[in-house]
Amino acid sequence: MPTDPNAAVHITAFSWVPDFAKGLVRDLRVRWALEEAGIAYSVRKFHGMAERPAEYLAEQPFSQVPAYSDGEVSMFESGAIVLHIAERSPELLPADAQGRARAVSWVFAALNSVEPFVQQLAGIDLFYAEEDWAKTRPGMVELVEGRLGKLADHLGERDWLEEGFTAGDLMMAHVLQNLRQTDILGGYPTLAAYLARCEARPAYQRALAAQMDDFDAEPLQAAA
Amino acid sequence: MPTDPNAAVHITAFSWVPDFAKGLVRDLRVRWALEEAGIAYSVRKFHGMAERPAEYLAEQPFSQVPAYSDGEVSMFESGAIVLHIAERSPELLPADAQGRARAVSWVFAALNSVEPFVQQLAGIDLFYAEEDWAKTRPGMVELVEGRLGKLADHLGERDWLEEGFTAGDLMMAHVLQNLRQTDILGGYPTLAAYLARCEARPAYQRALAAQMDDFDAEPLQAAA
Repeated sequence: MPTDPNAAVHITAFSWVPDFAKGLVRDLRVRWALEEAGIAYSVRKFHGMAERPAEYLAEQPFSQVPAYSDGEVSMFESGAIVLHIAERSPELLPADAQGRARAVSWVFAALNSVEPFVQQLAGIDLFYAEEDWAKTRPGMVELVEGRLGKLADHLGERDWLEEGFTAGDLMMAHVLQNLRQTDILGGYPTLAAYLARCEARPAYQRALAAQMDDFDAEPLQAAA
Repeated sequence: MPTDPNAAVHITAFSWVPDFAKGLVRDLRVRWALEEAGIAYSVRKFHGMAERPAEYLAEQPFSQVPAYSDGEVSMFESGAIVLHIAERSPELLPADAQGRARAVSWVFAALNSVEPFVQQLAGIDLFYAEEDWAKTRPGMVELVEGRLGKLADHLGERDWLEEGFTAGDLMMAHVLQNLRQTDILGGYPTLAAYLARCEARPAYQRALAAQMDDFDAEPLQAAA
């Protein structure tokens, strides 16, 4: 669904980021979860390259996006927000305790056991390509591949990390997208197919389109 | 409380790690949460430097510790496990929706907005001190300090990240401990005092003693 200025759920996002960051900004995770759950939302935007207003720190202590509010709670961190939405959405968390526990385990695995390595590699490729950092790249690739190998072993021939799609798949897919500047996923055909399967979900497509629309709607502004 | 071989809650941990890792292995987070909640647990141990048995991957797909089971669910990832325990423990999560949402936000902030940088720096210091990686150290310190500055700004003169101690403080404290090989926290006296306040909690002291006891009880084994 298109974003709705009168919706009860509010998120924050960026009005402008460099092209290489489009699709990767973390409000996409929250938009995707909201789309899976069928919850309408409105967006407040900040320029990605400019300092956020000081009062925003009360909502997001690290001055990042997204922050979230829904009339009942206001909170931050894409992982926490997605889990909050998922707790209200059978599309994102199974009803049984064991299924729920595994899904939540995968949300954290994506963010704490896979993303740190993937993000570090993306950092080298996108921000620190100068010689000293680049020399550490082969070691970083090895660390990333260590985690991807284990992930592929677990996935096997399954469609999703557990029985059906959950918030854990949503989070893992968005983490894996941070490898798009590399050809690493090509070495893991089942993971590449898994990511494509996640990206083919209509809710993901709507979320991505909404993030892109929000970039397009705003003219390029000078950074502060 | 001492660990109890007959307890309903089981966790996994290491029987041996190098000295620099003692106190930092992530089962400590789960032991600490269980101690805060007053829940007895038993421990199954693996040698930290040896390959874990292949069947352990069904419990922990990345072959890490801790894994957790309690008769109702089995799960993995220290963040997910601590949150699972916290949901049953008013000592770790406030009862009101907004307090709960902020506490969960801080659990994720510790693991996804602070730990990746802290861990990367610790990695350079402890594992990759050779020249190429070491050259990136000043840049990494700058990234860590960026997050610590924002964290100190938020904390201000408060005792805890929110009104009372929560799972968010538990997780943030253990992440900050990964800076112990540096003097960086010395530049943030309120954060150093905050960490000391967390470490002074009797539940933390019991958890640390239990992890250390579990190391001591096991003779050094050859790595596989």
